Amino acid sequence: MVVINKSLRIDSNANFQIIDITGDIVAILNEITHDNENSKIINGIVNIFTKHSTSAIRVNENEKGLLSDFEKVLKDSVKENNNYKHDFIDNNAAAHIRSFLLGSSETIPIVDGRLDLGTWQSIFFIELDGPRRNRTIDLTFIVE
Amino acid sequence: MVVINKSLRIDSNANFQIIDITGDIVAILNEITHDNENSKIINGIVNIFTKHSTSAIRVNENEKGLLSDFEKVLKDSVKENNNYKHDFIDNNAAAHIRSFLLGSSETIPIVDGRLDLGTWQSIFFIELDGPRRNRTIDLTFIVE
Amino acid sequence: MVVINKSLRIDSNANFQIIDITGDIVAILNEITHDNENSKIINGIVNIFTKHSTSAIRVNENEKGLLSDFEKVLKDSVKENNNYKHDFIDNNAAAHIRSFLLGSSETIPIVDGRLDLGTWQSIFFIELDGPRRNRTIDLTFIVE
Repeated sequence: MVVINKSLRIDSNANFQIIDITGDIVAILNEITHDNENSKIINGIVNIFTKHSTSAIRVNENEKGLLSDFEKVLKDSVKENNNYKHDFIDNNAAAHIRSFLLGSSETIPIVDGRLDLGTWQSIFFIELDGPRRNRTIDLTFIVE
Repeated sequence: MVVINKSLRIDSNANFQIIDITGDIVAILNEITHDNENSKIINGIVNIFTKHSTSAIRVNENEKGLLSDFEKVLKDSVKENNNYKHDFIDNNAAAHIRSFLLGSSETIPIVDGRLDLGTWQSIFFIELDGPRRNRTIDLTFIVE
Repeated sequence: MVVINKSLRIDSNANFQIIDITGDIVAILNEITHDNENSKIINGIVNIFTKHSTSAIRVNENEKGLLSDFEKVLKDSVKENNNYKHDFIDNNAAAHIRSFLLGSSETIPIVDGRLDLGTWQSIFFIELDGPRRNRTIDLTFIVE
């Protein structure tokens, strides 16, 4: 068993943006699998953790209409400019509160060298206070 | 330390159903503990991950009234048939949005061969778009 | 690679209280790092799991105004005394429902012996049904 620490750097280009990072994670997993000369088969988990408190990590279906529906529900549930105290310090209270509700990490199984996602699952970095450069997502592989 | 990949198959029998999977996970953990001839004591974690983007994994108290209360709040927060774009593709946008809010995985500690849950905690698979056959939940044990 | 099981005991002193446990976790991690004579560098993850179904674990910014804003949004989203069935058994349905929405665990990367949090991230135990004595939070380190 080994720990492998990797990270992704993401530039977002809108205030609210749901970015599919599945392909980036698969590419890093493939590099790890090919580097491992003792065994071509890797089992374990990968923890996906965003280092930003105005963002979130979630798993769901990458269908354009659905992502737009989800954005609308989240914005209706947590209104912007709602007399938040934090807005006097940094004008992004709604982004933090949405992040609080959604969560900062997901942990995904790895089976036989592949992310064991379901057919309709993608992994998303959700930008809640963009656009931003160099958003960092930690990927921690615990594998054998 | 070893990785042990297991999975549960669940048939749901209602559109919305909260299914207690604690007993199933304990049974699998007991099998693992008894298979391990070198040590009867196992410590580590188990990651519980649903492979379906219209479902969720959560931990809470298994009290019938509470589960009914939670269902009502979730359905009031995310209405069905609310002019969702995704409903034109597959008529289950509300189920996906509820899954987005709740999350796809939880990770639970294992101490001395037992799931270290609190007295009032159960692990739930939450079906949000049932009834369905063969819902798959990955259990990844990282233990020593 | 080793598993190290630790726990935190917390006394809350209000019905709703967001308690920053980052310092407690860092202190335990520092003890582990100094105990490890073979290597001063530790990489891996720590799983933070609350054993109480009327509480939650979340990661966000520790800014007083923001925590107050978040409390208000959560209380507006999940009202108290809303004809909940569970309130006839134990008068804390709203606390359980808020816990259901937020989640019981987060998993955080450890890089070079340090919790790899972002600049504005703290780890919170959220008391939803206090005041209570001896709330227990499991910390499971999977490190090498």
